[in-house]
Amino acid sequence: MSERAYRRLQRDERRELLLARATELFAQHGYDGLSMSQLAREAQISKALLYHYFPSKRRLFEAALEEGAAELRQRTEPDPARPPGEQLAMTLDAFLQWVQERPAAYATLLQSGSGEVREIITDVRATTAARILSGLGADGRRPATRAAVHGWLGFLDGATLDWIAHDDLSREELHGMLLGVFAGALIASGASGGLPTQNLPA
Amino acid sequence: MSERAYRRLQRDERRELLLARATELFAQHGYDGLSMSQLAREAQISKALLYHYFPSKRRLFEAALEEGAAELRQRTEPDPARPPGEQLAMTLDAFLQWVQERPAAYATLLQSGSGEVREIITDVRATTAARILSGLGADGRRPATRAAVHGWLGFLDGATLDWIAHDDLSREELHGMLLGVFAGALIASGASGGLPTQNLPA
Repeated sequence: MSERAYRRLQRDERRELLLARATELFAQHGYDGLSMSQLAREAQISKALLYHYFPSKRRLFEAALEEGAAELRQRTEPDPARPPGEQLAMTLDAFLQWVQERPAAYATLLQSGSGEVREIITDVRATTAARILSGLGADGRRPATRAAVHGWLGFLDGATLDWIAHDDLSREELHGMLLGVFAGALIASGASGGLPTQNLPA
Repeated sequence: MSERAYRRLQRDERRELLLARATELFAQHGYDGLSMSQLAREAQISKALLYHYFPSKRRLFEAALEEGAAELRQRTEPDPARPPGEQLAMTLDAFLQWVQERPAAYATLLQSGSGEVREIITDVRATTAARILSGLGADGRRPATRAAVHGWLGFLDGATLDWIAHDDLSREELHGMLLGVFAGALIASGASGGLPTQNLPA
């Protein structure tokens, strides 16, 4: 390895470490509750070096969110070889596991008042809804089914926040309830086909 | 009427008019997007007079929210003489009517990034959840039922925002779906009794 490549590796590692620390701190204090000065102090580096890696708090925050989102995407990637019901069940379980590893950070993110965070959440929400709706075929183009899927994503938020706050339900119980409500919401919306719920694990 | 009482009436009316105008403006611009100077300009009064009625933007905003919330409370007051299922159905319909009268304002409120607004929303959410859970008797003390009710309130938000954004579902369709999902969520949470759903209007 050339000396230059070696130096770049060190730089990338330092950046990764900084990002991991920033993610923890944002989770504790929220976006608005943290300044670049505090971040530098907590990470025990100079403010100049922090700005060298991340030109602004917004860029640092976006990088931290992007890293979390990339991990989430990778872990919740549906397996197209499986039936849609199983894909949803597996994706949902991967999501709940991901939340379970960072409950406080996730709750802070979801309840954040920051405009930037809310914009990112709205984007992720729209993408997830579109993915689910496209998996529902013709039903996914019905207004009532679209409203039901957006409603269910709201249910997922509400129930997940309650789960984090009280910590008295197993992940399996929550998972089963969420799948049951998904099937119920499709029925209540009058969807004709929907997911092959007979394939859902109990 | 004494002259003093007459003057006070005028003052109260002016305050009411100001409040109504402020409510419209907050709905359009959001809490952070509006200054007291703009409010005074838009309401065509002096800034001094505006501050005479409302000592700060926060107080004005709280008064506007409080007025909306008081109307909502009054209109969604459950009728204790009816069975619980009917109470929920009627309260929910009154809520959807209330939203239908101010869709843009409600969507802005629900998606607001302001810490103050989110605090108020969280408070209202907790009160509503407690009211529903207490109506469910022993089931309302089960963790899974509690999570289901909080989930359902999230469903209500998600589906209502979608309804406002697309305006292609009737209030009756949305109402039926929300009640169906409520019953489904109770079943999925394993609640034993729950609301007497046979009393729910179709």
